Amino acid sequence: MNVLIVGAAGMIGRKLTQRLARDGRLAGKAIDGAHLVDIVAPDPLDAPFPVVCEAFDIAASYVAPRLAGRRPDVIFLLASIVSGEAETDFDKGYAVNLGGTQALFEAIRRENALSGGAYRPRLVFTSSIAVFGAPFPDVIGDEFAPAPLTSYGTQKAIGELLLADYSRRGFFDGIGLRLPTICVRPGAPNKAASGFFSGIIREPLAGKEAILPVGDDVRHWHASPRSAVEFLLRAAELDLSLLGSRRTLNLPGVSATVGEQIEALRRVAGDQAARLIRREPNETIARIVAGWPRAFDPARAKSLGFRAETDFAAIIQAYIEDDFGG
Amino acid sequence: MNVLIVGAAGMIGRKLTQRLARDGRLAGKAIDGAHLVDIVAPDPLDAPFPVVCEAFDIAASYVAPRLAGRRPDVIFLLASIVSGEAETDFDKGYAVNLGGTQALFEAIRRENALSGGAYRPRLVFTSSIAVFGAPFPDVIGDEFAPAPLTSYGTQKAIGELLLADYSRRGFFDGIGLRLPTICVRPGAPNKAASGFFSGIIREPLAGKEAILPVGDDVRHWHASPRSAVEFLLRAAELDLSLLGSRRTLNLPGVSATVGEQIEALRRVAGDQAARLIRREPNETIARIVAGWPRAFDPARAKSLGFRAETDFAAIIQAYIEDDFGG
Repeated sequence: MNVLIVGAAGMIGRKLTQRLARDGRLAGKAIDGAHLVDIVAPDPLDAPFPVVCEAFDIAASYVAPRLAGRRPDVIFLLASIVSGEAETDFDKGYAVNLGGTQALFEAIRRENALSGGAYRPRLVFTSSIAVFGAPFPDVIGDEFAPAPLTSYGTQKAIGELLLADYSRRGFFDGIGLRLPTICVRPGAPNKAASGFFSGIIREPLAGKEAILPVGDDVRHWHASPRSAVEFLLRAAELDLSLLGSRRTLNLPGVSATVGEQIEALRRVAGDQAARLIRREPNETIARIVAGWPRAFDPARAKSLGFRAETDFAAIIQAYIEDDFGG
Repeated sequence: MNVLIVGAAGMIGRKLTQRLARDGRLAGKAIDGAHLVDIVAPDPLDAPFPVVCEAFDIAASYVAPRLAGRRPDVIFLLASIVSGEAETDFDKGYAVNLGGTQALFEAIRRENALSGGAYRPRLVFTSSIAVFGAPFPDVIGDEFAPAPLTSYGTQKAIGELLLADYSRRGFFDGIGLRLPTICVRPGAPNKAASGFFSGIIREPLAGKEAILPVGDDVRHWHASPRSAVEFLLRAAELDLSLLGSRRTLNLPGVSATVGEQIEALRRVAGDQAARLIRREPNETIARIVAGWPRAFDPARAKSLGFRAETDFAAIIQAYIEDDFGG
């Protein structure tokens, strides 16, 4: 089988491609080739199958037909303008997150028609818990209405609707995954409003100070990068007829307060690590974070075999094993 | 104030324009002019203000900038490819219902930018209970997730999301109305799957036979064309800051079974009318209708002053008074 990953140079895209290279298989079948695409060319990959790495902007009109024209069997659509940038650059956010998604869906539909319906790939679309906006209940159920408070969340919610309709029409076999906040993100601190959720673990583990801009009582919904990759692999192999007409899932994760995050850090790395967290309240960040989901009851995803960590210490452990050299 | 009605030649569009011509006012202000647009030119209107009637396809790229360029104060976006046609003609449905809506929103955004933010019209968008798809609870609450089972419902749900985001950004002040099935529709029978809900009242009242393709126990959510016009007028005058970030409302209506509809007809027009309903079960229609909502608890809309009939006899009475010469 052939795999296309759009957004392959991002944090999750890199982890997914490394995993596919290691396994050589996806959804029970040997991988015959991978097409790795991002706005910058993904790094070459040492894999037991041929790999093509290319730089493309999916908002450019010639790109989607070219990607779909190779008729990949499984497509991971991970590419996004992130939430902060989609908020400051309205046109770019809509062009990539909505326009690029719609263009890819249309290009697949065209290949489906050209093939007389024979070409009908699996499409795994990464959505986000950013489709939800306050007010909401303490625990969000599977039938709670998306009401995004950002353009990014709006674009993801629209992608989910298109995914369901194109799947219902039989143009492809799609599944949407509303990823929890992925934590602990490896690498340098970034300026995302959510960055501190990773920073207060990653930086102290490296002996560096971390800024905490919100109170210890702030509760949020997390899963590790390792779980994110497992979600994607599960989505690629699952019998999607089990989804019925509702093609997007809330996913399992860990609901933890910042205080519980810090307590888990203390248990794993001791008091001296926890002491590196400096409290520097930031009202702007606190206000943004107050509009974010705190917990889910992802009953459907669990019944379909999606699994994540069950406590925050396991999320820290996954980071140490996968990104901190054990 | 100036009013733009897109979809002015449709059943609700005509009733709305006639009402505006009669009142001469909207949202407490005198109307200075009306721009009536549809795919066929709306009929000329005898009104106490200047009226421009034009035929346009909102899917054509030059149209939205032209409509928004006149900077109307209140815009009613009623135009749609209806559900049956959007299902059989995928491209046309997306081009008009999604592309046309998006183009109009973008054109307004451009006028908003050109005016330095001063131009920020009221935009009333008609959505539909078709955004909901089975399975759902017997009574659908305000926070139940849309999960459309048609391309039409998908396009309406996407329009709602765009409406909320463009409103949040301050490009216009938008409100979406999820209209119940509008019943009793005047005029000739049509081939919509929902057509019988009106047909079993309208045809017997005119002494004609009507076909009933589903069982008497089928329950659905109705409001009269008169209520639909009242919804639009209320939406044009309401202080939309009361909506918060959730810009689309489930609306009041009457939850009635087909049996209750027929009983109401019997009370209003006697046994001889009810006897004109011929039962001719149609499995295809029955299956489609089984995926439609049966009842709502539209608490938000009610608290914001939206009102509809409270029983089906009142819906029949409205039809007799407004469309059957009393």
